[in-house]
Amino acid sequence: MQNLLNRHTDEVGITTLTLSQPERRNSLSFSMLDALGESLTDIAEDSATRVVVIAAEGKVFCAGHDLKEIRDQLDSYDFQLALFKRCSEVMQQVVNLQKPVIARVAGVATAAGCQLVASCDLAVAESSARFATPGVNIGLFCSTPMVALSRNVSRKHAMEMLLTGEMISAARAEQIGLVNRVVDETLLDDTVYGMARTIAQKSGHTVKIGKGAFYKQLEMPLAGAYDYTAEVMAENLRAHDAQEGICAFLDKRKPEWKDS
Amino acid sequence: MQNLLNRHTDEVGITTLTLSQPERRNSLSFSMLDALGESLTDIAEDSATRVVVIAAEGKVFCAGHDLKEIRDQLDSYDFQLALFKRCSEVMQQVVNLQKPVIARVAGVATAAGCQLVASCDLAVAESSARFATPGVNIGLFCSTPMVALSRNVSRKHAMEMLLTGEMISAARAEQIGLVNRVVDETLLDDTVYGMARTIAQKSGHTVKIGKGAFYKQLEMPLAGAYDYTAEVMAENLRAHDAQEGICAFLDKRKPEWKDS
Amino acid sequence: MQNLLNRHTDEVGITTLTLSQPERRNSLSFSMLDALGESLTDIAEDSATRVVVIAAEGKVFCAGHDLKEIRDQLDSYDFQLALFKRCSEVMQQVVNLQKPVIARVAGVATAAGCQLVASCDLAVAESSARFATPGVNIGLFCSTPMVALSRNVSRKHAMEMLLTGEMISAARAEQIGLVNRVVDETLLDDTVYGMARTIAQKSGHTVKIGKGAFYKQLEMPLAGAYDYTAEVMAENLRAHDAQEGICAFLDKRKPEWKDS
Repeated sequence: MQNLLNRHTDEVGITTLTLSQPERRNSLSFSMLDALGESLTDIAEDSATRVVVIAAEGKVFCAGHDLKEIRDQLDSYDFQLALFKRCSEVMQQVVNLQKPVIARVAGVATAAGCQLVASCDLAVAESSARFATPGVNIGLFCSTPMVALSRNVSRKHAMEMLLTGEMISAARAEQIGLVNRVVDETLLDDTVYGMARTIAQKSGHTVKIGKGAFYKQLEMPLAGAYDYTAEVMAENLRAHDAQEGICAFLDKRKPEWKDS
Repeated sequence: MQNLLNRHTDEVGITTLTLSQPERRNSLSFSMLDALGESLTDIAEDSATRVVVIAAEGKVFCAGHDLKEIRDQLDSYDFQLALFKRCSEVMQQVVNLQKPVIARVAGVATAAGCQLVASCDLAVAESSARFATPGVNIGLFCSTPMVALSRNVSRKHAMEMLLTGEMISAARAEQIGLVNRVVDETLLDDTVYGMARTIAQKSGHTVKIGKGAFYKQLEMPLAGAYDYTAEVMAENLRAHDAQEGICAFLDKRKPEWKDS
Repeated sequence: MQNLLNRHTDEVGITTLTLSQPERRNSLSFSMLDALGESLTDIAEDSATRVVVIAAEGKVFCAGHDLKEIRDQLDSYDFQLALFKRCSEVMQQVVNLQKPVIARVAGVATAAGCQLVASCDLAVAESSARFATPGVNIGLFCSTPMVALSRNVSRKHAMEMLLTGEMISAARAEQIGLVNRVVDETLLDDTVYGMARTIAQKSGHTVKIGKGAFYKQLEMPLAGAYDYTAEVMAENLRAHDAQEGICAFLDKRKPEWKDS
């Protein structure tokens, strides 16, 4: 498993998951998906991790599914359904993980690779990165990737990527909202880990409450979203970290998170 | 009917529907809506059509409903309801047609004309094109146009157009996501038909699966969207074109679509 | 109450509500929320008001909740829940008020202050205005503000503001869709009141129909939204102002709104 995916947690609680099969374009084979899924399950319970960065080795961030693996099972509907269900589960683990996940995109992110970027809470790309949902070119429409893509960018932008299958530049990805920031390659780590450190300094308990509530309220009508989040906030205020944070702010001192 | 709307299919399967009443600003009269609706019904079954372009003759792309027709029936609630229902049906035919539809916008697109652009999967405008939802200026709020508009652009941008009734430029329309691209008038056909040809070369079966799934999954919560699209993808892989496309890609040859 | 919130209606029906506690950073204390809520209830029935502008005195537009007030009741879940529910109600009053509301943003708008801007139909900011949802910095995630924020801007942009807690510039706020326009401070009133006057000249009955329908249809699936708005339009045409507006337009004269 270490061959596929490397995991490293630094001293401030930033865990980097690095897709490490550059020779296979870091494709999301069943085993890579299992490695990612298991790592995310583990990280969910790991108190040492405060923020996750998803990175990749080599010139391709992630090329999507492993087409050879798909071809080898072309007659098995059950295999394919299991594969896409597994992939969908892992993408939802990223969304549902109660710790922020940042995509660090160098190189090309296509198909389910583009979906992985779209599924992260935040994404930073270096200026030569490129993105596509090119399934239409090989007869297999990017139908699962579009779930994440179309929840990041507007309809016409998503449709252009899906129907033409063409690459878009990092600058265009930033313009349409697929990534937060585009920076020169030499600044990529500074930007990603700067952002990660900023978030790692917050109360983890607070971030957990907030990220969880964010995706839930998005799927509610306005009145329901307010009923729900008003309770979330009142509940949040019962926690040590909110009480400490407010008092520290008013006393003009640095808060000390308990953060369990 | 040929007077109202011209239809031409080229050798690669691009069908252009041209609104052809420039002297009436290509307005969406009941008869124009019927012509559009019948053409779309027909195109849905027409195996020669792979991509649709909606264009218009003259300096106005489409000025929305025919106000004279509305005035002539001002006392008939039934007529008006039937008119708006017919218009809503035709707009949904554009969305539900399992072939991509591209708006080729030269000149002004207002009210239901702007709605038509918003309802297409893709839109390209020449740089002097302009857009508005000006119903508010004549006491008739653009309530059906806003259904399409507000699913293309963000709330504040939609509200600004709806409440002020003012024209926005093509550049602004691109910026807010109402159109995909803005090009010089001399490049409009090259851009629109270039995009159409790119899409026409894909497997029609694949495009059909993908476009249909796109709009369906948009209306689902995340988990439901993934359950649905994972099945769509596994099903997609049962088709000849996906199997051929994947094998051709891995064998580094051009795929041959069956595409029924 | 006049101390907290000033209200002035001009001769064309533009009511300006001015948050007037600059010494407390115009924070949304319970009493400020009550003042806002009562004013909005009153304005809903006030035939002299056609458009509302929300403005603020001093260098801070609005700093969100009053943290001292929250600290003083830190042990009372009931107080906090009532506070967030009250705030949520007032924000929904802005959305549900059947008259357009424009935010005039000078200075800093943070937390529930940023939420107030996001809740308005339109927003104009001067170029040095700044926005943030910094609750995460004090252990209290901006969970109610994110309801409004995430319905204005895309997910990654919302998440960046919520997770980092950092300020964004007015230019960035315009780019991501949080405000409609950014102008030099010297042009702020001209722009806000120019926009307000444009809208105040429309038929108030028409604007009321349209704004109400806008937010309702946003929460419906496409087919339902069309069924609903087709009826709204047919109904709209029964009103004097639509009939007058259409006839005036066709007769090339200025419409005379009845506008009850």
